[in-house]
Amino acid sequence: MTVKIALLGAGTVGSQVARLITEQREDYQARIGAEIELIGIVVSDTTKPRPDFIDSSLLTTDAETLIDAADVVVELIGGIEPARTWIMRALTAGKTVVTGNKALLAAHGPELHDATAAHNANLYFEAAVAGAVPVVYGLRESMSGDRVERILGIVNGTTNFILDEMSTEGMEYDEALTLAQQLGYAEADPTADVEGLDAGAKCAILASLGFHTRVSADDVDTAGITGITVADIAEAKRSGTVIKLLAIAERVNPDGTSGAEHPTSTTTPADGEPISVRVHPTIVSADSPLATVSGAFNAIILDCDAAGRIMFYGQGAGGIQTASAVMSDVVAAATHTAHGGNAPRESAYATSRIIDPAEVRSAYKIRLHVRPDLGTLAEITALFAANQVSIAAVDQQGSDDAIVLTISTEPARSGNVEKLTAALTDTAAVREVLSVLHML
Amino acid sequence: MTVKIALLGAGTVGSQVARLITEQREDYQARIGAEIELIGIVVSDTTKPRPDFIDSSLLTTDAETLIDAADVVVELIGGIEPARTWIMRALTAGKTVVTGNKALLAAHGPELHDATAAHNANLYFEAAVAGAVPVVYGLRESMSGDRVERILGIVNGTTNFILDEMSTEGMEYDEALTLAQQLGYAEADPTADVEGLDAGAKCAILASLGFHTRVSADDVDTAGITGITVADIAEAKRSGTVIKLLAIAERVNPDGTSGAEHPTSTTTPADGEPISVRVHPTIVSADSPLATVSGAFNAIILDCDAAGRIMFYGQGAGGIQTASAVMSDVVAAATHTAHGGNAPRESAYATSRIIDPAEVRSAYKIRLHVRPDLGTLAEITALFAANQVSIAAVDQQGSDDAIVLTISTEPARSGNVEKLTAALTDTAAVREVLSVLHML
Repeated sequence: MTVKIALLGAGTVGSQVARLITEQREDYQARIGAEIELIGIVVSDTTKPRPDFIDSSLLTTDAETLIDAADVVVELIGGIEPARTWIMRALTAGKTVVTGNKALLAAHGPELHDATAAHNANLYFEAAVAGAVPVVYGLRESMSGDRVERILGIVNGTTNFILDEMSTEGMEYDEALTLAQQLGYAEADPTADVEGLDAGAKCAILASLGFHTRVSADDVDTAGITGITVADIAEAKRSGTVIKLLAIAERVNPDGTSGAEHPTSTTTPADGEPISVRVHPTIVSADSPLATVSGAFNAIILDCDAAGRIMFYGQGAGGIQTASAVMSDVVAAATHTAHGGNAPRESAYATSRIIDPAEVRSAYKIRLHVRPDLGTLAEITALFAANQVSIAAVDQQGSDDAIVLTISTEPARSGNVEKLTAALTDTAAVREVLSVLHML
Repeated sequence: MTVKIALLGAGTVGSQVARLITEQREDYQARIGAEIELIGIVVSDTTKPRPDFIDSSLLTTDAETLIDAADVVVELIGGIEPARTWIMRALTAGKTVVTGNKALLAAHGPELHDATAAHNANLYFEAAVAGAVPVVYGLRESMSGDRVERILGIVNGTTNFILDEMSTEGMEYDEALTLAQQLGYAEADPTADVEGLDAGAKCAILASLGFHTRVSADDVDTAGITGITVADIAEAKRSGTVIKLLAIAERVNPDGTSGAEHPTSTTTPADGEPISVRVHPTIVSADSPLATVSGAFNAIILDCDAAGRIMFYGQGAGGIQTASAVMSDVVAAATHTAHGGNAPRESAYATSRIIDPAEVRSAYKIRLHVRPDLGTLAEITALFAANQVSIAAVDQQGSDDAIVLTISTEPARSGNVEKLTAALTDTAAVREVLSVLHML
């Protein structure tokens, strides 16, 4: 038996998938116990020059005919359309789909999963989150016997690279972004990366898997890194910390605190248990395993009831690295096609409730440029008290017109911190609110 | 439908598995799409006091009757017999077995895998390596599309704890071992851990999975940590390194160098490609992700052709942590039992050749207490040259009767280093060969 593979897209990842299928053919056959054959590659322009390892006779613009002829459809064009239409065509025909399309999954996951179930099709998507890092398998399979309390991830290499350069080279944000663009780590329009939207889509996928519930990109409260300054990073360094853009998905207690730190002991699957899903720059202790994740590397921590802390680490982007994740799905898909069995089904039995972001409690670090007057500190701390934000530590640097207060808080409601920030901005005692950052 | 689970063993891990099956029952049912029922627990003494969460009415000494009545047999008694006989009974009846028994798998894996294939049974063993860390899934599934070049693992918590204490507290080996025994991290007879046999069994299992070939514990060249001194650790620290007991499984080039560092580009599955499988104390750079793995934590690095470097990190031991890994297998096993499908089959199509340990090349650090005489260095370096061991760096500390030479080598054949060590021991210029350690 030969399993027929249709490849949609021959870009950075797609072309490497084509190369692996050809170069590792013998190994794949031995592992699967059946041949796999790449029967065609859908591209928008068949005349465009391609790498040598792309067999040009496989190129076609006719996606529908190719999909209909295939057993396994590998979608690597990205974006919503035509990816969605083509994937739905394959799924409604009961075929197996392998995709790395995080945006589509985070926006239209339910439609894809429903079609998969209705037509006894299969859907694999290891490559949708964190490139070569097998965290989708990790959550779908390895943590299936456990209760995930919290997911913490560095899942966007572009922003991690920019923050790294700002930290190690002292670059300002704009300068680091330009460098990232020159090196091909950031796109000409970097919005999806730097505003946290890409990380938000991945956060939604991870939360869906970890909490057995449906979470879409719209559910994720997202903040990017465009407001981070070199001064923020210098201050973080001074106190033995670093700033990372984190995707955070966690169960929360009724008071808005993290379920990972104060776990509740009982669970029923359908109790509308509150969860928080968010992406924001976060101050991380330098001795956290997340602190040393540099450049384009990704890392995902799972805090679980039974397993404790598990971390997955590896390259989160890159054509050949992501192709490795795609091919693990293709090997599984081909094995099932040849010998029976199915991909893991969507597990969405829980009806978790996405908590209002204003209700989430976390610790903050607030930096203020203040007036040197008598009574300034009293005035400022009164505003903290009035807004129910408890102060954990105060640090004062500089003198006269250059006094900077750095105030660390106890876990506080995000809504209260927002009101506090507005009040601080309005008071004469504060010249400028320099930054308000979450602390892990 | 109800999937019937038989549990063999109610020790540290087994009792936690029983607890999870009871406490997470609703979640498991929702995830599996079928009920699971613990139908009995085999123990050697049904009258012994047990934790409250063990239902004493489930206890039995009659393993055979229980196995025959079960769909899924979970073996957590460890050791070779009676585990082997009971597992074989289940497999030959076409049942699904979940085991965490590394010793049995590393010694009798082929027998178990052959029985699994012959009787269309299923064999899961996530818990056999690195506790809660999902590296068995990682290799069996997530790297199935890639070519693994090298596996580097800290897979024994006992020795990692002892080396940690020696490093952070300045304890000698004996003292650290006694502490580990007091804290329950080491057994009364610590041989299997400190001599590297436990790590060797795990190394064999990881190598089998990573290289799609059969590797047994006997194939692994094993050295433990009993010879490591505080002076070795202090010297490692002085040069920005740490000493870790590493399990290393790697493809090797014809000249004995690591395939991960100088990959060959071609592969055919059945070419008798050389691999090296070994466990030994290793000097690791402080900025390696392995360096910061402390205490009972485990970490496994996979260096892969396409994915690059992937790391898995988490708790390598502990009842509840290991029970998480067992339950991921039970959920998968129950899902297959209820809805069809199979565990991944053994993938052992490659006939890799275990290279003679003497042929393996790696860098070494050799510490010598030498005579302060004129000509000592010339005499010693002549012995290096005569044994074809190239010197990369020489460092001299102390004076008069306390001169210690620390010599780092280029990658050298292990057999040559052995001859060199014998020659150094015999020469009058050397008072004592203090240590000969591998460097990563």
